[in-house]
Amino acid sequence: METRQWVLDSRPVGEPSAENFRLETAELDDPGPREVVVRTLYQSVDPYMRGRMRDAESYAEPWDVGDPMRAAVVGEVVESRHPRFERGDVVQGEGLYWAEHAVADGDDLRRVDPSLAPVSTALGILGMPGVTGYYGLLDVGEPRPGDTVVVSAAAGAVGSVVGQLARLNGCRVVGIAGADEKLEWLTDDLGFDAAINYKTEDVHARLREETDGIDVYYDNVGGDVTDAVWDLLALRCRVVVCGQIAQYNATEVPTGPRKLAKLIETRGRVEGVLVRDYDAEQWREAITRLAGWIGEDEVRYRENVVEGFENAPDAFLGLFEGVNLGKQVVKVADAEYADL
Amino acid sequence: METRQWVLDSRPVGEPSAENFRLETAELDDPGPREVVVRTLYQSVDPYMRGRMRDAESYAEPWDVGDPMRAAVVGEVVESRHPRFERGDVVQGEGLYWAEHAVADGDDLRRVDPSLAPVSTALGILGMPGVTGYYGLLDVGEPRPGDTVVVSAAAGAVGSVVGQLARLNGCRVVGIAGADEKLEWLTDDLGFDAAINYKTEDVHARLREETDGIDVYYDNVGGDVTDAVWDLLALRCRVVVCGQIAQYNATEVPTGPRKLAKLIETRGRVEGVLVRDYDAEQWREAITRLAGWIGEDEVRYRENVVEGFENAPDAFLGLFEGVNLGKQVVKVADAEYADL
Repeated sequence: METRQWVLDSRPVGEPSAENFRLETAELDDPGPREVVVRTLYQSVDPYMRGRMRDAESYAEPWDVGDPMRAAVVGEVVESRHPRFERGDVVQGEGLYWAEHAVADGDDLRRVDPSLAPVSTALGILGMPGVTGYYGLLDVGEPRPGDTVVVSAAAGAVGSVVGQLARLNGCRVVGIAGADEKLEWLTDDLGFDAAINYKTEDVHARLREETDGIDVYYDNVGGDVTDAVWDLLALRCRVVVCGQIAQYNATEVPTGPRKLAKLIETRGRVEGVLVRDYDAEQWREAITRLAGWIGEDEVRYRENVVEGFENAPDAFLGLFEGVNLGKQVVKVADAEYADL
Repeated sequence: METRQWVLDSRPVGEPSAENFRLETAELDDPGPREVVVRTLYQSVDPYMRGRMRDAESYAEPWDVGDPMRAAVVGEVVESRHPRFERGDVVQGEGLYWAEHAVADGDDLRRVDPSLAPVSTALGILGMPGVTGYYGLLDVGEPRPGDTVVVSAAAGAVGSVVGQLARLNGCRVVGIAGADEKLEWLTDDLGFDAAINYKTEDVHARLREETDGIDVYYDNVGGDVTDAVWDLLALRCRVVVCGQIAQYNATEVPTGPRKLAKLIETRGRVEGVLVRDYDAEQWREAITRLAGWIGEDEVRYRENVVEGFENAPDAFLGLFEGVNLGKQVVKVADAEYADL
């Protein structure tokens, strides 16, 4: 069986571009015992992928040039040699590929319930970004009623979940994003108390107006936005380091942490979160609760669906332009076997 | 009753100098109920005082120009209107002054037991720096046997305690200091596994040789030394932010934290410590244990005693030259009433 797939053609220097990707056709092996053939319906593009394209030590191995790009995928089972799955099941896998078909270990897949929400959400609010925001805020950020929570990249897949969960926890929530359309969504639809446009406003001055000390800063971006927050951190603050998208394309490595004296003053804590630390049972807990809140209209989400497998690199590159509102996914195919 | 005292004559810009201090004579009020008159035997000079000389928000109010400089003092009671104290008792107070005599609230003083160690240690290993190192390492740093612990300003009052407690906890200990004499003391007397001279060696390269990932970084300095440590932090590392002496004299405020992605990679935690968060009972616990280890020769200390009250500013300024080995104290007077 053949599949089209996107491979890493070259490593980006600075901002990635279309030249870093190449579309090729590859022959798939037949599925072995406990393996299934998955036909991709939706493919995820996420900021963390920029790190894998780099040849540098991180929390995961870099991808090799010439190898297929990896991605989280929602797909339908075409053929199964795994007892838990049969043709037509909808599954989600974190370690699949930018590919139209893939052979996957059934033990690494989780079943997606199409009755909860559109299956594409298994890449967003009911998938990695949602689970990240859930544990990043609740487990690492430890919000308490009355806390002021500031979220950067607040209209993104993770940030929009974080802000709404903070609101449900009785916190005052201020989001930072880069377009007025996003700000409106945050305050008018998601119930953020305030939102700041980092491209057109003085973030530090606005945060001084909107907050009286920041108890939790959920950081998806790093850099200048984090600087604007830093001086306003409150006693016993928690800074959740979830992403640093403003830094991912940096070619010159700057110095490391400065102004750490703020943490002596506040006895603050800065801590990183990575969703893969949470096990399958914890994923189920987070997804079940998020789905419940979605059902009650307590939590909302948006997706930006890019149509067509050919457009996957553009969908990825768009992440760094800050144009997408909500989770960025690529629609690869309509279901053929699954009943959606 | 009159006292000589040092007042803040002007705020330093950058490196402080002798011109920022002025010696004056002042009239003391008579002690009120529960107050005692303390005659200073030893006065402390500490890096944190640089922060109080600045007119900026921090964890404590800045000192006013024209007001006496504050200090921790070990003194003898000359006159007491407090039921717990009588003439000749040796006491220690954190919030006293760069002064030969002071009137203090007896409730704010703690009794010093001269049988434990020389009373000057109540300003060092059996006082604020020792208690800071004790809780900073054990409570915030959470060292485990087999951990690699790196300490900056390792030959200082706090760092030397931290390194020895890490050793007692079964950790591999690497100290960073600025003079070969200090390095020898760390490895030959205090049992550090290795020591690095940041003035003459490539700290990053040496840390790569001496460590295989850093589990606990106890940071007393910040800046370049912290940069050298940062890339080598291990999974689930703890960075204890205790001091940032390399930054205290900075006039240009640099950007804040960068390279926070390291904390996503490691799920590391960076947290500040301030000794005043620990209550009197906790101080007693720390001091009792440290005194016990000193008695068993499991923990050692050094003091650099500067003779003469006139020399207090020089003793303070010396802190920023990195010349003192162990705790820097000023001997103000011999005991007149206490039996030492």
